[in-house]
Amino acid sequence: MDGTVAERLDELGIVLPAPFGPVGEYEAAARAGDLLFLSGSGPVRADGGLVTGKVGADLDLDEGREAARLTGLQILAVLADQLGSLDRVLRVVKLFGMVNTAPGFHRAPAVIDGCSQLLVDVLGPSGRGARSAIGVAELPFDIAVEIEAVVQIAG
Amino acid sequence: MDGTVAERLDELGIVLPAPFGPVGEYEAAARAGDLLFLSGSGPVRADGGLVTGKVGADLDLDEGREAARLTGLQILAVLADQLGSLDRVLRVVKLFGMVNTAPGFHRAPAVIDGCSQLLVDVLGPSGRGARSAIGVAELPFDIAVEIEAVVQIAG
Amino acid sequence: MDGTVAERLDELGIVLPAPFGPVGEYEAAARAGDLLFLSGSGPVRADGGLVTGKVGADLDLDEGREAARLTGLQILAVLADQLGSLDRVLRVVKLFGMVNTAPGFHRAPAVIDGCSQLLVDVLGPSGRGARSAIGVAELPFDIAVEIEAVVQIAG
Repeated sequence: MDGTVAERLDELGIVLPAPFGPVGEYEAAARAGDLLFLSGSGPVRADGGLVTGKVGADLDLDEGREAARLTGLQILAVLADQLGSLDRVLRVVKLFGMVNTAPGFHRAPAVIDGCSQLLVDVLGPSGRGARSAIGVAELPFDIAVEIEAVVQIAG
Repeated sequence: MDGTVAERLDELGIVLPAPFGPVGEYEAAARAGDLLFLSGSGPVRADGGLVTGKVGADLDLDEGREAARLTGLQILAVLADQLGSLDRVLRVVKLFGMVNTAPGFHRAPAVIDGCSQLLVDVLGPSGRGARSAIGVAELPFDIAVEIEAVVQIAG
Repeated sequence: MDGTVAERLDELGIVLPAPFGPVGEYEAAARAGDLLFLSGSGPVRADGGLVTGKVGADLDLDEGREAARLTGLQILAVLADQLGSLDRVLRVVKLFGMVNTAPGFHRAPAVIDGCSQLLVDVLGPSGRGARSAIGVAELPFDIAVEIEAVVQIAG
């Protein structure tokens, strides 16, 4: 991958993982006009395994935040795969962050910041958009975090 | 209803139900440009009753998947009602599938596939877009599945 | 704030609160074309405190509905802050209402109506669009309701 964002990834020492890919009858992303709607991504470790469990019980806040960061890497990997170059990202318009939450854990925003901070580090101000963050009962494969995105793209 | 998709429904032996309709101060759908945002739909049986209960406890996977298929029929019914003809559907851009989930049930994607498969069967490749699927604590009227959609339309 | 909607707020005796503001690495809203995506808002009381707890346990239906109304005031406050004038709102295209729900509480739509009714009272028919409403396991800071919005805007 070439381009300004690819150089930024190099500077940060980040190597994008392979996109995990859909786990059913859907696509990784779908475009409408200049908006790209991304399917929910999850936290994939460098060894290809998934980060699972409930934040606030199986994982603490820092581990949840790291799971969100890994999810952000998946979002970037999907964008790179769909767009060819991350330089075509104009704006991360919207994130919806869902945290696999133990009862009484109320810090979903601090968890999802692990993804948001990565996107800002890599994409600059255009990596920061609107966001909601909630705690949900169960996620697919018991993953710790699932995040979907709406991204405005060029070209 | 006329058109290519209506013929496909006939071939599949599918008769669309009446749209269940909003249950509060909102509309079944709202358009912005060529995007139609659909309100959350639920599983309505042929007799008009709702499929209720938690998947993984009250319903097994197959029953959950059938609930998702019934929800997909509601989505098609809303689209037909809003658009006059399903031939105006250009693309199912995004589904957000919420499964009323028993603790420890992690197969929301397999449940929501019941809807996605129906949309692909009826609409072809344009029925397949981005998707997220999660397990939620409680749904309105204790329905088993709720799915919302963003659809790109023509005309 | 001037304009037709500002006059309507005066007639209704509504003084908009200050927007609560983001609680992490995101913006209160992000625009793409004529769509404004709003981050999740929560219920802020006139004294600046948050309405917390689970609807169906800590809060009854009426208290939940009032929490949704307060969340609607936050949505209007964010819109006024972003747009300068609420007259630039063309349509509330989509609401996604998440209720912090006790087990067995199935009336999320009736709760979220507290927000929808306010938006219709203030904005007229353009305040009513598509909507989904669900019960979720946990919300940030244990707030009773979180609502996000997609709004079509002019200018």
